[in-house]
Amino acid sequence: MEDRGFHEECGIVGVFGHGNVVDLIYYALYALQHRGQEGAGIVVHNGTKTRVHRGLGLVSDIFTESQRRALNGRMGIGHNRYATTGKATKLRNVQPILVDYKGGKLAIAHNGNLTNAKELRRRMERAGSIFQTTTDSEIVLHLVARSKAPTLPERLLEAVDAVEGAMSCLVMNEKQIIGYRDPRGFRPLALGSYDGMHILASESCALDILGAHFIREIEPGEMIVLDADGIHSRMVRTGRQHSFCMFEQIYFSRPDSHVFGESVNAVRRELGRLLARRHPVDADVVIAVPDSSNSAALGYADESEIPFELGLIRNHYVGRTFIRPGQRSRVDAVRVKFNPVVEILEGRRIVVVDDSIVRGTTSRQLVRLLRKTGAKEVHFRVSSPAIQNPCYYGIDTPRKVELIRSRMRVEEICSYIGADSLGYLTTEDLRAAVKAPQSYCLACFTGEYPTSIPQEADPLVFDVD
Amino acid sequence: MEDRGFHEECGIVGVFGHGNVVDLIYYALYALQHRGQEGAGIVVHNGTKTRVHRGLGLVSDIFTESQRRALNGRMGIGHNRYATTGKATKLRNVQPILVDYKGGKLAIAHNGNLTNAKELRRRMERAGSIFQTTTDSEIVLHLVARSKAPTLPERLLEAVDAVEGAMSCLVMNEKQIIGYRDPRGFRPLALGSYDGMHILASESCALDILGAHFIREIEPGEMIVLDADGIHSRMVRTGRQHSFCMFEQIYFSRPDSHVFGESVNAVRRELGRLLARRHPVDADVVIAVPDSSNSAALGYADESEIPFELGLIRNHYVGRTFIRPGQRSRVDAVRVKFNPVVEILEGRRIVVVDDSIVRGTTSRQLVRLLRKTGAKEVHFRVSSPAIQNPCYYGIDTPRKVELIRSRMRVEEICSYIGADSLGYLTTEDLRAAVKAPQSYCLACFTGEYPTSIPQEADPLVFDVD
Amino acid sequence: MEDRGFHEECGIVGVFGHGNVVDLIYYALYALQHRGQEGAGIVVHNGTKTRVHRGLGLVSDIFTESQRRALNGRMGIGHNRYATTGKATKLRNVQPILVDYKGGKLAIAHNGNLTNAKELRRRMERAGSIFQTTTDSEIVLHLVARSKAPTLPERLLEAVDAVEGAMSCLVMNEKQIIGYRDPRGFRPLALGSYDGMHILASESCALDILGAHFIREIEPGEMIVLDADGIHSRMVRTGRQHSFCMFEQIYFSRPDSHVFGESVNAVRRELGRLLARRHPVDADVVIAVPDSSNSAALGYADESEIPFELGLIRNHYVGRTFIRPGQRSRVDAVRVKFNPVVEILEGRRIVVVDDSIVRGTTSRQLVRLLRKTGAKEVHFRVSSPAIQNPCYYGIDTPRKVELIRSRMRVEEICSYIGADSLGYLTTEDLRAAVKAPQSYCLACFTGEYPTSIPQEADPLVFDVD
Amino acid sequence: MEDRGFHEECGIVGVFGHGNVVDLIYYALYALQHRGQEGAGIVVHNGTKTRVHRGLGLVSDIFTESQRRALNGRMGIGHNRYATTGKATKLRNVQPILVDYKGGKLAIAHNGNLTNAKELRRRMERAGSIFQTTTDSEIVLHLVARSKAPTLPERLLEAVDAVEGAMSCLVMNEKQIIGYRDPRGFRPLALGSYDGMHILASESCALDILGAHFIREIEPGEMIVLDADGIHSRMVRTGRQHSFCMFEQIYFSRPDSHVFGESVNAVRRELGRLLARRHPVDADVVIAVPDSSNSAALGYADESEIPFELGLIRNHYVGRTFIRPGQRSRVDAVRVKFNPVVEILEGRRIVVVDDSIVRGTTSRQLVRLLRKTGAKEVHFRVSSPAIQNPCYYGIDTPRKVELIRSRMRVEEICSYIGADSLGYLTTEDLRAAVKAPQSYCLACFTGEYPTSIPQEADPLVFDVD
Repeated sequence: MEDRGFHEECGIVGVFGHGNVVDLIYYALYALQHRGQEGAGIVVHNGTKTRVHRGLGLVSDIFTESQRRALNGRMGIGHNRYATTGKATKLRNVQPILVDYKGGKLAIAHNGNLTNAKELRRRMERAGSIFQTTTDSEIVLHLVARSKAPTLPERLLEAVDAVEGAMSCLVMNEKQIIGYRDPRGFRPLALGSYDGMHILASESCALDILGAHFIREIEPGEMIVLDADGIHSRMVRTGRQHSFCMFEQIYFSRPDSHVFGESVNAVRRELGRLLARRHPVDADVVIAVPDSSNSAALGYADESEIPFELGLIRNHYVGRTFIRPGQRSRVDAVRVKFNPVVEILEGRRIVVVDDSIVRGTTSRQLVRLLRKTGAKEVHFRVSSPAIQNPCYYGIDTPRKVELIRSRMRVEEICSYIGADSLGYLTTEDLRAAVKAPQSYCLACFTGEYPTSIPQEADPLVFDVD
Repeated sequence: MEDRGFHEECGIVGVFGHGNVVDLIYYALYALQHRGQEGAGIVVHNGTKTRVHRGLGLVSDIFTESQRRALNGRMGIGHNRYATTGKATKLRNVQPILVDYKGGKLAIAHNGNLTNAKELRRRMERAGSIFQTTTDSEIVLHLVARSKAPTLPERLLEAVDAVEGAMSCLVMNEKQIIGYRDPRGFRPLALGSYDGMHILASESCALDILGAHFIREIEPGEMIVLDADGIHSRMVRTGRQHSFCMFEQIYFSRPDSHVFGESVNAVRRELGRLLARRHPVDADVVIAVPDSSNSAALGYADESEIPFELGLIRNHYVGRTFIRPGQRSRVDAVRVKFNPVVEILEGRRIVVVDDSIVRGTTSRQLVRLLRKTGAKEVHFRVSSPAIQNPCYYGIDTPRKVELIRSRMRVEEICSYIGADSLGYLTTEDLRAAVKAPQSYCLACFTGEYPTSIPQEADPLVFDVD
Repeated sequence: MEDRGFHEECGIVGVFGHGNVVDLIYYALYALQHRGQEGAGIVVHNGTKTRVHRGLGLVSDIFTESQRRALNGRMGIGHNRYATTGKATKLRNVQPILVDYKGGKLAIAHNGNLTNAKELRRRMERAGSIFQTTTDSEIVLHLVARSKAPTLPERLLEAVDAVEGAMSCLVMNEKQIIGYRDPRGFRPLALGSYDGMHILASESCALDILGAHFIREIEPGEMIVLDADGIHSRMVRTGRQHSFCMFEQIYFSRPDSHVFGESVNAVRRELGRLLARRHPVDADVVIAVPDSSNSAALGYADESEIPFELGLIRNHYVGRTFIRPGQRSRVDAVRVKFNPVVEILEGRRIVVVDDSIVRGTTSRQLVRLLRKTGAKEVHFRVSSPAIQNPCYYGIDTPRKVELIRSRMRVEEICSYIGADSLGYLTTEDLRAAVKAPQSYCLACFTGEYPTSIPQEADPLVFDVD
Repeated sequence: MEDRGFHEECGIVGVFGHGNVVDLIYYALYALQHRGQEGAGIVVHNGTKTRVHRGLGLVSDIFTESQRRALNGRMGIGHNRYATTGKATKLRNVQPILVDYKGGKLAIAHNGNLTNAKELRRRMERAGSIFQTTTDSEIVLHLVARSKAPTLPERLLEAVDAVEGAMSCLVMNEKQIIGYRDPRGFRPLALGSYDGMHILASESCALDILGAHFIREIEPGEMIVLDADGIHSRMVRTGRQHSFCMFEQIYFSRPDSHVFGESVNAVRRELGRLLARRHPVDADVVIAVPDSSNSAALGYADESEIPFELGLIRNHYVGRTFIRPGQRSRVDAVRVKFNPVVEILEGRRIVVVDDSIVRGTTSRQLVRLLRKTGAKEVHFRVSSPAIQNPCYYGIDTPRKVELIRSRMRVEEICSYIGADSLGYLTTEDLRAAVKAPQSYCLACFTGEYPTSIPQEADPLVFDVD
C-alpha cells in the first residue's frame, strides 16, 4: 500500500476442524493482513456443500458478520492478496480459486511465485487449456486436474514436479487440506493446533491470534495432509539448497512471528545491533521509521547506547481507500504517513533506522521532513544491504533500473536523499544475524538467484479488467 | 422474475464497429432485458486491450455511466442472464466469459441449453479440464481451446460438432465476432447494421432501440463472422429439421420484435383470434393479463367483437429487488403485480386472456381477485395449449409434476382456478398462426422432443456460492 | 423521470393498526411509486420507540427485507418523493421528516405545495427559526411546534391557518396519525380499512394493493384523527371553492384509482371519446403513447370505431438509474422509451393519442419515429387542452416560456411536431368528462389561479448538496 | 472503537483560504481520526454555493476522490465524530450541521459537551423549536438564530453566554469562519497558517500533516474570526479558572501534537518517569500497551533503567468494521488487538505500562495473555490516577458504577486483573508533569467538577434510527 517498492504478495491459512471454522480463518487472515491488503477470500466445506466468498479490500470489510454466517464449514482455506504495482486488483484474481474437476471440488490458495509460470501456461494453452485468471494458482489447478494419479496428494505431487520457483500453498477438496512448501522453502508455512483442530498458516502470528498452539514450521519439500484421521506428513522433495527469503526477516513478516526458526523481532534487533557496530555515529537520538523498523532501531539504540525515541508518529486509520496525495495535491505524501515529534528532533543529531531503501524517494522525503522539523544532523541507517536486483519468488519489486542502488553509488545515494551519512548492512551481517546463514536467498542483494529465472523481460500480462 | 414457471434464460448482442460501441451494446441489452434480469455483462476490445464488466441485477444498474466510460472498444459482445428457479445468480456465472487460450483472448455469450452438457463436462473433466462456472458457455470455450484447427471459426465449428441442443451464441477474439445458430434454430438471432457497423442480437427489438437496420435473421446452421473486412457467412450445418421455439412467439420475445420470420405481435393477435373461434363465449368485456397477453387479448376482442378493456393495471416499478410478499406477509402476491379496475369488472362477464398456465397458482389467484372485484363471470382463455413437458432447450421450467396439466384434466383445472369456463388453444391452432408450421418445436405441449434429452433426472449441480 | 415536464411531487400513506404495519406501508408506497420515484421514507412507532428509514431511489431498493425488519411499529407514515427538474434529490429532503419538539416526537409527510412557503419561511427565520431542508413539511413542523395549543390536532389547525396552497398531509406523534386536506382539495387523500386498521393514502390503488376496503375520500377542509379509539373526523375549514387538480384525472393518478369521486380510467376513456368527437379524422388505426394514454386511446377508438392497436411498446426495466441517452450518445432518446411495431404502423394512417404536450420535444421525436417506421399519416390527438401556465400546487412544471403553447399557435405546434393534424380538447370537454365540473382547478390551461400565487419569479432555493 | 471506556467525541478543523481547500480539510480530518472514527463531514463554500458531504465510517472511506472533487470551496469546516457507547452512529448526527436561517447559511462543528444541553433544549422546545438531531451543535445553532444581534460573531457571543460546559467550536457562514473556545478551555483548539491561509484545528498534528505553520493555541474565552481581511481575535469571556482536560495529555491527543502549551509526547514521557519513581520495581523489561502508552513506557524505562521492548504487537488493519469477537466466538478479544512477542516476555519479569484503567476488563485479559506467553511476573503500571468519576465535558465515559476503582480498592483491582503489583500515579504527579498544573480539570480522578453538572442521571435520549 505504499511506494516502498517491495511487497509480499500473499498470506494463506487453512483449518481442518470441527464446528464452524469460518471465524478462525477470518481472524487468521486478519492477523496476516500485512501480507496482502487488496483482496481476500475464504472457501469452506461443511460435509455437503462447498462455499466461497471473495472480495476486494481489507479482510474486515470483505467478511461482514452476515457474510461470515453465510459461509459455514468445518474445513476451509483462506487467502490475502496483494496486487502488483500499478494495477488495480481484479476480483477474478482473488484467491482461493475454486473449481470443479474430475475429482470433485478443488480449491487452492498460493503464496509465492512460479518462475516457469509463463512457460507452463503457454504449454498448457497449446494443449488446449483455458485460463480465467492470471494467478499461478490456476496453473497448479490445471496440473492437478491433468494428472492421472488416483489421489489428490499424488496429483499435487505431479503438479509440483512441473513447477519451479516459490510455492507455499494449500489445496483443498471435500475431504482433505494439503499444505505444501517447495523444496527451497522460499516462503514460510507454519503448523499449529487448537482445540483438537489443525491449522496451517503463513506466519505464526496467525496462530497466536487464535490462541492456537504453534507446533512447528512445515519443512521445505514437505507435504502435509490434514483430514479426518489427523495429520499425515511426508517429505516429498528433498536435496535442494534452502532459499529462505531474507526479506521475510527484514521486513515482511510480523515481528511477533516465528519464521524460518527465528523470532523475527530478535533477528531485527540483532540487525540493528550489527548496524550500530558497522556504522556507528555520534548522535543524540535513535528513531525508527515506524512500524517495520522499530525492532532494528531498538537494537541500534541498545548497541550504541544512544537513546531510542518515538520521533515519527504513524497515521494508522487507513480504511478501504489508501490515502496518497496525488501530484496536484498541495499535501506532502510523506507527512500523510508520518508526523515528526518536534521536541525529539529539534536541534538534535538523529540516527534514523529504516529497513530498506528501494527507489530512494521516500527516504529523501523523510530526511527533508526531519530537517524541516529542526534535526541538526540526519544519519540514515539501513538494516539491510542495498537492493540491486528484482525478486522472482513472490515479491513485487520494481524493475532493476528503478532500484536506486543499481544506478548510484552509496555516496551518491547519501547525497540524493540529503543525509549527513548513510550506512547499509552487508550480506555478512545478515548471515550473522540468523541461525542458518546458508539457508537464505539473498538474490535481491547479490544477484545470485538460486533457480533459473524467467528469460523474458516482461511479466505475464493478462490485462483484462 | 415471477412464478410463472417459464423463463427465457438469456439475451445476447454483439457489435463490430468503429468508435466506441459500449453504448450500443448497453442499449441493446436494455431492450433485451426481458430475456434475463438477474445479471449482465459486456466484453469489449479496443485494438490493444480487452475489458470486461459483469454484475448482478438490471442492466441499467450494472452499467453506470462511469462504468461504461471505463469500458471502451470498437467491438464487443454482451449478455443478459436469467438464473434458474430457487437459486440466486452467482456473479461467476454471469456472461460473457472471457479467457486466455492459445489463440489469445476468447469471450463467449450464449443463449440456449446444451442437452449433452453434463456428459461433455464429465468427459472433459476426465481429460483433465477444470470448470470455474456452471454455464454451457464454459464447455464451448474448452472445446474451442482443445481444437487443433488453425482459425477461430474452424475451432468453433469443431466445438459445435460436439454439442447438442439449443445454441445461439457469440464468440469473440481480438479480431472477430462470430455468431452461430444451431442447425435446428431453437433460439433466434438477428443481424442488423447501423452506421457502417454490423450487429447481432437475440431479437430485432435490440436493433430498433439503436435505430439500426434489420437485415435478416441468422439461419439455423449458419455461422457468420464479423471482422474488419465486413460480414462472412457460411452455412456450416444443414439438413436438420428446424425446431424454432414456439414459446418465443407465445410469450418470451417482445411483441415489437420479428422472430422466426414473423411479427411477434401479429402472431399473438392471430392466436387471440383463433382462441376466440376455438372457445367463443357470451361476455361483456375482454381483458388481458398485462403486458404479455395484450396482443392476444386484442385479437380475441377483435374476432369476438366483445370490447377490449384495460381491466388489470400492472405495477411496473420493480427496481433491483423483486417484490414478492413472503408467506408471513399479510399482502396478496397477485395484487402486488396487478390491480383490477372496478368500473370495468364490476357486474360484468369477463373473458380474461393469458398466454399460458404453468402451475395454475397465479391463474387461481387472479380469478379470485377478479371475482372479489365484482366480476359476474370469469372465462379464462389461454393463447397456447396446455404445457405438459419440461423444456431442455434454454427455458427454465418446473419439473413435470409441477405442471398442472400433467396432473389434472382441463375441467379439473377450470375448477381449481375457479373459472366459469376455461379454453386452451390446440397445437393445430399454433401451427395455423405461423408461416412455417413445420419448423417449430412444440415439445413442451406434445412431449415430442426434436433431440435426445438428458437421461438423468437432475440438472447439472455445481452449488458453490 | 422523463422530460415530459409535468411531475407529481409526492405520494403519502399512513396506517394506524396493530401488529407490525411496516409491510403495509411498504406495499402502499410501492403502489404509489408513480407519484415519486426518487426517494422514499417510512416512520413507525411501536409504543416505545420511533424509528425512521429514508433513502434515495425506488421503494423496493430502499426498503430491503432486512431494513423492513429493523423498522417495527403498529403505527406509521410513509412518503414517496419526486425531485424538481434539474436537481438531484438530496437525502435530507426525503420525507417523512421526524423531529423532537415540546410535545415529543413529531413526523410529517406532505403532498402539495404551499404558495406562501417562501414568505412563511422568511418570517420564521426572522423570528429565529433554522431550516435544515427545503421542504414545505419543515415549515408546517415549525408552525406546529410554535403553536401554544394544548393538543396536536389543535396545533396542526393553527398551522394550517397560516399556510396557503395545496396540502394533503399526514402528521404523526406517538399516539395519533392526523390526516388533513386543504379546503380547496387540490390533492387527493383516501381513507380505507383493513383487518380493523385504518389507512390514509394518496390514491385508492394503495388500498387495493393491500386488499383494503376503500371507505371514502377525505373531504376538502377535513381533519381526520386515527388513534387507539378509532377515527375522529372534523370539518375544520369550509366554504372555499373546491380546486381539484384536473391533471390527477388526465395523467398523474393511476387509472385503477378512484380520485375526486371518479374512476380515473372512466374519466380518461370519456376524454378519449370527447376527443374523437371534437377532432375526428379518417384513419386506419388508433394507438396510445403508453401507458398513461391507453385509456384515452381506447375511448377514442371506441367512439371513432377505428381499431385500437398496441403500436408502441414501452421499455419497462428502469432500475435505479434512469436511462436517458446523453447528448453525445448515438442513441435516440425516444427509442429508449418506445419501440414502434412495424406491422401495425407501416402504410397506415395513424391516430396517436397522448395525454398532454408540454414542451413538444417528445411529441416531435415520436412523430418522427412513427414516420420512419412507415406511417402514412400521423394525426396527433391530445386528451387535454394546451398547457399554458405553470402550476403552483404541487406539480413540477417548466417555466411558462418553455411551454410550447405559450410560444406557438396550434397550427405552428402541429407543424413543429411534424403531424398531419393536431387536436386538443377544450376546457369544456374536461368539465363534461367529470361529475363535479365546477370543483376543478384548470389554472394550467386557463391561467385562472384559485389562490394568489407567489410574486417572485424564482422558486425557493436552498442549494446545498 | 475499543471497550476502554474513555473516548474523545470529536475533532474539528476549519480553513479559510484560497484555491480549493477541500483536500486540506480532508487531510486534517485524517490526522484527527483518533478523535472520532464513526463519522465525518465537510462543509465548504466557494463564493456562490455551500456544499456539504457527511458519512459514516472512516474519513478515507467517506471522502473518495470523486466526492472530494464534487465538494469545492475556498473556505470550509470539517468534523470527526465518535458515537457514544452502545449506540450506532446515525448519519443525521454527523456534523457539521448546515442550516438556513435569517442570516443565510450557517454551519457548525463542535467538540465538547454542554452541561446544560438538556435544559436549554427543553427551554427552546417550550418556546417552539424543533430538533432534528441530538447534538449540542443544533442547540448552538438555535441560539445563534434566535439572537437579535446584527453580526454572526455577536450572535455567537449571545449563544455562548447561554451555554455551560466544554465547547471548542467552529461556526461558518458565507463570509467568515469563527472559532471559539469556552473560557475554561476544556478542549484544545490550535491556529496555524499555510500558504497565506488560516487554519483552526483541534490539535497541532492536523497542521503538521499539511505542512502548515503552528501559530498558537486559541485562548480560553477567545473568539477568532477568519475572513477575507485576515484574522480578528477578541477575548470575549475571561476570568474563569482554566479547566484543561488532563486526559488530552494522558490519552486522547496524539503524542506528536502540542496541546495546552505542552508537547504531548514530553508530558507522557515525564508521566512515565514519575511512575517509575512512584512505583519502582525490580524487573527485566518494560513494555507498553501500544500505541497510546508508548511514550510513558519509554519514560518508565528511561528512569528505571530497565530496557524498553516491543513486547506487544498491535493489529492495525481496522477497516470500516471494527473487529471485536462476539460472545459466541472462540477467539479472545484481547488477542485480536495485541499479539505478545514470546522472546521478549518468556521467563521475564515484565513492567507493563498502560495509560489508564477504566473497567479493568481489558487489563485483566492482557495480564492473562502475558502470563500465558510465559511472563514470570507482571507489574502493571498506570500513567494516570484511578478514574472514579464520569466526565461531562465531551468524553464518553461509562457510568460511575462501571468504573472499577469506584467499586474496588487498588489491592483488589491488582488481584482482579491478576497482576503481581499495580501502581497508579497521583494527581500530584499529574500536576508535576505539566507547566500549568492549576489549569487542568482532574474531575474524573477527584470528583471536583469545575462547573455544575447535570442533575438528571440519564443522558439526553433521542432514540430514533
